[in-house]
Amino acid sequence: MQHLDRLVRALRRLPGVGPRQAERFAAYFLRASQGEVEEFITALSEVKSSVVLCPKCFAYSEGDLCEICQDPDRDVTQICVVEDPQDIESIEKTGAYKGLYHVLHGAISPMEGRSAEQVKVRELLARVQNANPKIQEVIIATDPDSEGETTALYLADLLRGQVPQITRIGYGVPLGGDIDYMDEMTLGYSLKGRTKI
Amino acid sequence: MQHLDRLVRALRRLPGVGPRQAERFAAYFLRASQGEVEEFITALSEVKSSVVLCPKCFAYSEGDLCEICQDPDRDVTQICVVEDPQDIESIEKTGAYKGLYHVLHGAISPMEGRSAEQVKVRELLARVQNANPKIQEVIIATDPDSEGETTALYLADLLRGQVPQITRIGYGVPLGGDIDYMDEMTLGYSLKGRTKI
Repeated sequence: MQHLDRLVRALRRLPGVGPRQAERFAAYFLRASQGEVEEFITALSEVKSSVVLCPKCFAYSEGDLCEICQDPDRDVTQICVVEDPQDIESIEKTGAYKGLYHVLHGAISPMEGRSAEQVKVRELLARVQNANPKIQEVIIATDPDSEGETTALYLADLLRGQVPQITRIGYGVPLGGDIDYMDEMTLGYSLKGRTKI
Repeated sequence: MQHLDRLVRALRRLPGVGPRQAERFAAYFLRASQGEVEEFITALSEVKSSVVLCPKCFAYSEGDLCEICQDPDRDVTQICVVEDPQDIESIEKTGAYKGLYHVLHGAISPMEGRSAEQVKVRELLARVQNANPKIQEVIIATDPDSEGETTALYLADLLRGQVPQITRIGYGVPLGGDIDYMDEMTLGYSLKGRTKI
């Protein structure tokens, strides 16, 4: 069954997909109608041919500048720095942010040999230096893991003096979380970051 | 981002894939090289054009009869009945079975309105009746859940008198399982099915 094996191998390259799930996905495609599979292939081909990186913020875009960079209602003096394009949608859903974004496409990782040169750090610096009107705040929203922290510290050093305010997203207990099960680091941050009620 | 949204919608149709995972898969395809994506599309198209159902046992096949039905070393007097084509690979891995298979493509489910007519039951009966040499044993290896049980009982009734031996796979505690955490039904079956050591 060489064709089927080849499809299963291709499906295994999807992030987080193991051998059983790849087989189940292949079985789905085998059961699906020809029309459904064609629709899938068309969607995939069109994405590859039409989705580009926004030249300003490096989010995904289907035009030249992305929708957010083009939006006249956004606050152009704020930049929120994220690791991945998908992070933007999560932040947008909160409705708590109306500025622009900057996608690094990864985090600095000495362990994996990923240096600042391999993510869009230089582009961020150039953007901050050339911005008109001036950037007032850079919010660093990299992941709260060791790579994200390393990146946040690196960016804070790099941008110091270039932007009036450099901030990091707040740490704390997630809503719906259980204090009992929370790790001590998070709980410590949540105590330090306590607010009046 | 209509093209990207369309791909995410298509990916959500994969079994067990939620909105976040579909977005991660789409991000994988966006990051992947053009070559990788083309390889994926080719694998998918070839599977759709070359994989058919074996006309005898309804397993997937890339020729006419499937590899197992074509294999002269298999015991053609035994048929193991499974719900899905993937089940065959799991059973083959045990090395404990050398007969033929019959894939129902589902289980009888009154809850979901799936009758015996909608799975390959009639085909199984015809196969048993027309087999030469005669089938000596039908092993019913449908899933040990309520649909699989319903199907097993239905098949046992249907085939009674047509085949010398109709068997059901054994229930019991899975290896590596913990007696403590086992449900009472399974444990009850495991006691009934005890063997001498």
